[in-house]
Amino acid sequence: MRATIIHGPGDIRVEDREYPSVLRGSDAVVRVSAACVCGSDLWPYRGIRETPEPRAIGHEFVGVVESVGSDVASLAPGDFVIAPFTGNCGKCAPCRSGVTVACEELVGWGSKDVHGDFVQGAQGEAVRVPNAEATLVKVPGVSDPEDSLLADLLTLSDVMGTGHHAAVSAGVTAGSTVVVVGDGAVGLCAVLAASRLGAGRIIAMSRHEDRAALAREFGATDVVAERGKEGAARVRELLGGVPADAVLECVGTAESMDQALRCTRPGGRVGFVGVPAGGAELPIGVLFAKNISVGGGMAPVRTYMPELLEDVLAGRIHPGKVFDSVLPLEDAAKAYAAMDQRKSVKVMLKP
Amino acid sequence: MRATIIHGPGDIRVEDREYPSVLRGSDAVVRVSAACVCGSDLWPYRGIRETPEPRAIGHEFVGVVESVGSDVASLAPGDFVIAPFTGNCGKCAPCRSGVTVACEELVGWGSKDVHGDFVQGAQGEAVRVPNAEATLVKVPGVSDPEDSLLADLLTLSDVMGTGHHAAVSAGVTAGSTVVVVGDGAVGLCAVLAASRLGAGRIIAMSRHEDRAALAREFGATDVVAERGKEGAARVRELLGGVPADAVLECVGTAESMDQALRCTRPGGRVGFVGVPAGGAELPIGVLFAKNISVGGGMAPVRTYMPELLEDVLAGRIHPGKVFDSVLPLEDAAKAYAAMDQRKSVKVMLKP
Repeated sequence: MRATIIHGPGDIRVEDREYPSVLRGSDAVVRVSAACVCGSDLWPYRGIRETPEPRAIGHEFVGVVESVGSDVASLAPGDFVIAPFTGNCGKCAPCRSGVTVACEELVGWGSKDVHGDFVQGAQGEAVRVPNAEATLVKVPGVSDPEDSLLADLLTLSDVMGTGHHAAVSAGVTAGSTVVVVGDGAVGLCAVLAASRLGAGRIIAMSRHEDRAALAREFGATDVVAERGKEGAARVRELLGGVPADAVLECVGTAESMDQALRCTRPGGRVGFVGVPAGGAELPIGVLFAKNISVGGGMAPVRTYMPELLEDVLAGRIHPGKVFDSVLPLEDAAKAYAAMDQRKSVKVMLKP
Repeated sequence: MRATIIHGPGDIRVEDREYPSVLRGSDAVVRVSAACVCGSDLWPYRGIRETPEPRAIGHEFVGVVESVGSDVASLAPGDFVIAPFTGNCGKCAPCRSGVTVACEELVGWGSKDVHGDFVQGAQGEAVRVPNAEATLVKVPGVSDPEDSLLADLLTLSDVMGTGHHAAVSAGVTAGSTVVVVGDGAVGLCAVLAASRLGAGRIIAMSRHEDRAALAREFGATDVVAERGKEGAARVRELLGGVPADAVLECVGTAESMDQALRCTRPGGRVGFVGVPAGGAELPIGVLFAKNISVGGGMAPVRTYMPELLEDVLAGRIHPGKVFDSVLPLEDAAKAYAAMDQRKSVKVMLKP
């Protein structure tokens, strides 16, 4: 089969790899209908994270179950499924408490499972999924979704669940005043998540007209282009002199965390989901003096999937609009380049 | 009148100062019935914080209203009142949202108010209280509390409200598993607060037998004397292999925050109220990977006072047991020395 391999900074190739098969009773093999490129995939692409040797890449996919192990009862060949960006067992204490990303048998796509067996990356034709019943979510009544629904479903694999985690971690509730830092796919989904949770005011910080337009479509009531002190002052002005109740930090840099803290009112909360890119700091003195809470981290998207899926299937939310480009898998290198150069917000890859 | 003045590290003197009087319509003058020494008072005493010039010290007091300004309607001479460790206006946005410690007219006892007029320190005979109606809480039906009740009421000025803030910030709720880091007066009150909120299991980290005994009396189900990795391992063992849902950090050092994070389960929360003593860090990578939330800061004790007072007056909680010594105001220097040398948990000073 064909699979995307990163060889080093800027070096993405689609190569031939062995087609996966069921190795254990709890496995399923999923034929990928669509995958995509994540902002965090750009880190090794940009050389911010090292790539010591060529490796399979990609962690977001949806597809059709092809085969299942003998212990898999709730999934069958032909089922359309969504995979969260990590696999989990469903049985350990973290899984039972909903923090699936801290699973004791956590599976990273494109690396090895707890038994030492390889699991494929998501940007390829097929993936063996360990602990398939706990990991995959079946989409009821859907076998071959049309493009718009396919895009919506694919966002549940990561960006929509991650944006939702930012909103939940920041305590967004009906009437909250919200600021979203970051206008990438996660930031835009965070706007949608905040809107879905009933926020009263949502300020998207963006200086890109196309992204700002989508933010407005997703529920942003205001867009602020300024950054730093000026951005925080503008937020305060828009909110009648008081910073926001909840700030959703969807970038992961020192600048974005600083921006988030500047925009939070005393007693407010920052929900952060941007993978810390190094340098992001939490100044404990500021948190103490302003009584600002900080929560978040790697999103347990598997836990959020059922409720978000319900809204997608009912047509209440359309997070798939973050995809502004669809390319064949063979053009994975072009997809990375487009996202790296910010020509695209989010690129879907179809095998 | 007599008032406690800090002149520099280790140099506490009780000196003569001018008796306060009402300066504005919203003022009240309170004759102090009891004050006390706070762990944070030890920082200038130990030279960790500078004392550039002699200054009045002390921020916890209860007492009797002596005189009020013309705008004060809800308080009258003879009322017994509790003062929070900072004064607040009750009208600004932070006050209205309950974060009284971020008040736009915040008053620190022993410094100047927003008009530039001096307000006395708490460790003295009397204090002028600006914005008296918003700041002071009247104790109904009490004019001259006996010693045990006096001690309970005095804790509402700071340590009990601060311990409660740690518990609230860490999300303690019925059935939570809780670890309390710090066995000073705030840590002990945090145990009591967690118990009051219905925690299922409360592990106090203490290596002092007398403090551990009081922690047990306040509701600790277990005491762990080990620290660092060993302490965290012991906590995990006591909780059946899973770290705690909620960890209450009541010290403020790098070591105590590290201890707190080690004791928190993935998806759990740290409530921190220890004034950061420098060096305390929040490792964002750990928070991200483990989905640990951190909240807290300077406690809005004024906001918590009514509900805690109700429990004190009903005899349901006795936080005043943290006082293990009562000295006359003239012996303030002895009180500081006893706390500095950890001979006392908390010393009450009576003018």
